[in-house]
Amino acid sequence: MAPNLDSFFQTVDANSEHFIDRLRKAVAIPSISAEEARREDVVKMGMFLKSQLESLGASMEARPLGKQPGKEHLELPPAVIGRYPAKKQEGKRTILVYGHYDVQPAEKSDGWNTDPFELTVDEKGRMYGRGSTDDKGPVLGWVNVIESHQKAGIDFPVNLLMCFEGMEEYGSEGLDDFIVAECKPGKYFADADAVCISDNYWLGTEKPCLTYGLRGCSYYSIEISGPGQDLHSGVFGGTAQEPMTDLTRVMATLVDTNGRIQIPGIYELVAPMTDEEKGLYTNIAFTMDNLYESLGSKTGIFDQKEETLMARWRNPSLSLHGIEGAFSAPGAKTVIPAKVTGKFSIRTVPDMEPHEVDTLVFKYIKSQFARLESKNTLDVSLQHSGKWWVASPNHWNFTAAAKAVEKVWKIKPDLTREGGSIPVTLTFEQATGKNVLLLPMGSSTDAAHSINEKLDRRNYIEGIKLLGAYLHYVAEEPMK
Amino acid sequence: MAPNLDSFFQTVDANSEHFIDRLRKAVAIPSISAEEARREDVVKMGMFLKSQLESLGASMEARPLGKQPGKEHLELPPAVIGRYPAKKQEGKRTILVYGHYDVQPAEKSDGWNTDPFELTVDEKGRMYGRGSTDDKGPVLGWVNVIESHQKAGIDFPVNLLMCFEGMEEYGSEGLDDFIVAECKPGKYFADADAVCISDNYWLGTEKPCLTYGLRGCSYYSIEISGPGQDLHSGVFGGTAQEPMTDLTRVMATLVDTNGRIQIPGIYELVAPMTDEEKGLYTNIAFTMDNLYESLGSKTGIFDQKEETLMARWRNPSLSLHGIEGAFSAPGAKTVIPAKVTGKFSIRTVPDMEPHEVDTLVFKYIKSQFARLESKNTLDVSLQHSGKWWVASPNHWNFTAAAKAVEKVWKIKPDLTREGGSIPVTLTFEQATGKNVLLLPMGSSTDAAHSINEKLDRRNYIEGIKLLGAYLHYVAEEPMK
Repeated sequence: MAPNLDSFFQTVDANSEHFIDRLRKAVAIPSISAEEARREDVVKMGMFLKSQLESLGASMEARPLGKQPGKEHLELPPAVIGRYPAKKQEGKRTILVYGHYDVQPAEKSDGWNTDPFELTVDEKGRMYGRGSTDDKGPVLGWVNVIESHQKAGIDFPVNLLMCFEGMEEYGSEGLDDFIVAECKPGKYFADADAVCISDNYWLGTEKPCLTYGLRGCSYYSIEISGPGQDLHSGVFGGTAQEPMTDLTRVMATLVDTNGRIQIPGIYELVAPMTDEEKGLYTNIAFTMDNLYESLGSKTGIFDQKEETLMARWRNPSLSLHGIEGAFSAPGAKTVIPAKVTGKFSIRTVPDMEPHEVDTLVFKYIKSQFARLESKNTLDVSLQHSGKWWVASPNHWNFTAAAKAVEKVWKIKPDLTREGGSIPVTLTFEQATGKNVLLLPMGSSTDAAHSINEKLDRRNYIEGIKLLGAYLHYVAEEPMK
Repeated sequence: MAPNLDSFFQTVDANSEHFIDRLRKAVAIPSISAEEARREDVVKMGMFLKSQLESLGASMEARPLGKQPGKEHLELPPAVIGRYPAKKQEGKRTILVYGHYDVQPAEKSDGWNTDPFELTVDEKGRMYGRGSTDDKGPVLGWVNVIESHQKAGIDFPVNLLMCFEGMEEYGSEGLDDFIVAECKPGKYFADADAVCISDNYWLGTEKPCLTYGLRGCSYYSIEISGPGQDLHSGVFGGTAQEPMTDLTRVMATLVDTNGRIQIPGIYELVAPMTDEEKGLYTNIAFTMDNLYESLGSKTGIFDQKEETLMARWRNPSLSLHGIEGAFSAPGAKTVIPAKVTGKFSIRTVPDMEPHEVDTLVFKYIKSQFARLESKNTLDVSLQHSGKWWVASPNHWNFTAAAKAVEKVWKIKPDLTREGGSIPVTLTFEQATGKNVLLLPMGSSTDAAHSINEKLDRRNYIEGIKLLGAYLHYVAEEPMK
């Protein structure tokens, strides 16, 4: 099975310096989507990617996504989409891959040891640079897979559909509608048989994983108001009911120190643990020291890794983020704020329906506020919500990826979920109706979004092999 | 008694346009102490005041107060001090008066109806301009009193010592040490027999008052920290103990919706109500509508004015001001803040000793945090404290002022306290060891510190008479 992989792997190894050089060129383009002044560079990066793929014979398009909402003088960077081979190979599976070519902001003065836009490889093979791991390395991985097949003279095993965006680090503006439209019958992505996204990370540094679940997020505001304007606490303290007092009392009832959500009914919405699931956590390559290292402290809730992983992946959590309208600067100000807005969010998991969560949240907060018998005014609202996502890890898309991992890394991957959200995942699942796989290239220490972001040379080169091997196995995997 | 007052009053009336013109010249100097670029104007205003008094024969000095702490390139505006008559009149009482010649910031664009630095008198005699009531009107009141005595050909009834500062609206930088030093034997203010400060307001708009008490203020920080850096709630929510959760739970235990402080022992420190005091509140010219108007809402705690006045003047209060380090901007951010600092203050009253309050606060907060059994770290600290002040309203300084009010306004003044602090009051009391009187000129609607600050023409002109009459009565009042 997958007989051509050896020569593909050898070609990847033989071209590794060339592939690193390609990443170097990409990192050198500061495609920061959050910064207006860098919009030109974001587009430049999209065009670089398009031309690299076109030079390999892919059929590419740069699709405009319109004006940026709220900044209508700015054109959104295009969705760079494509197909390889340019002409569809009948009888082969079609795999839709997604990645993004924009990056987080970075300045040397933020604390980087090296120029963030100059790929710098150290003696341990750590390749530092903004976007190295998030997400230029994985995106160029697909380019390198195509080139390696051509150089090795191997047939490309699938039809590859590509969707690369330039606004992922700024809310994926404009992309959702585009995906939904292009997945309709007769449109660009209509014939996808499965989806693969390489934009997340291993749980640790040594063991690869396949990710099949993400938590959702429902974000709420609690606004409490009373006086017509901010008051001086000397003049009014003791004579007026203070919105901050009420808000603090309400927020304090939401969750306890050990993360237990106090809203009745929330845990009843959570899918019960099955016997099969119970065993899943023990073998995951994760230790409590991994947690403490990433926390920068030992202030974890649980002592066992199993409970910690369950808390991150399969249980809901509630975090209080802050208060808008109160005094938040350093120093001392004796204000009684007239209107304060508490912000919190709930990370949701199967089978929590967002609107059911909303109902429980609103009812509980209103009842807690009513208990105060306050003359102030409460308004509780949902700011936004994104649903959790869980795919079947038994689908051929996953079993193919697992075989690819074992071929490249000589180890069975961990099947993991994540605590955060990657909203595009759910969009692809819903728009295509097909299985979506998250297939990470980088490791937990890559510091995406932070200073000194890096991708290990090993993860990049073996990662190219992994993406290619995945396409070979996915081409041959029986339907399930 | 005080036989010369009629001719003094007539002279004030005859010169009222001249006095308004003096105020116009003062308001035209934008002596904003908070703005570095206006420092020259603050000094200019001090020199204007000094020259006005010198031209009337007062002995004046501009005393340097050194560099501004934290902005050492800036010289503090001088303390303008003086004596009138220049040569001490033996056998007459010496009254030390205080005021300030700096003002709050103001820009037309803040919402002023008129240029804030051009005194604008409307048809109802409202004189709009920054500093009109706070505190240029009262300060020039003393100048006008001297000039009116000269023009009326009346002996000046007391020795007047003057202390005018230019940093009151920016924390009275440098003044405390100066006052303490100059009140020592043989120094400038050594022979003061009593102190009079005109820098506050009537409780309403129709009835004058004498103010004999102020609450103190103790300002605290509760810092709770855990993780080494801010965390993403998707990745860490449910696995780490969150400082915001703990802080909110601790802050929620400090005070209830009706302003009742929950810290055991606090109310035991408060001086008990005497039978004499009980009757004081009923006759004060204050209504619940006054409260609702100033609140801009009906969210008061008490339904009766007596309880409201007691809550403002003679009972402690606790206000939660805000949280530093949490998410405080508009919008939605899914951060778990690593370190958050809650700010609150307690307004203190007789007989609460600040260090006893500190002890109770620290003990209670530590015990409430301990109940959470959290792995996070608590640090509670005092940011600053200023003690309450209460003078005896039976002292000759007050009885003289009461007679002056009755003479000028044909009504007995309310004896009031205030909920806020004027720290220099306590400084003068402690440094001189003498009685301090707060003798307001303006009314509750003057909007000091706000847009459209004004002083009513009536309050200014009658206020000049009041200050002069006070000096006459205070000269004759028997010792008590």
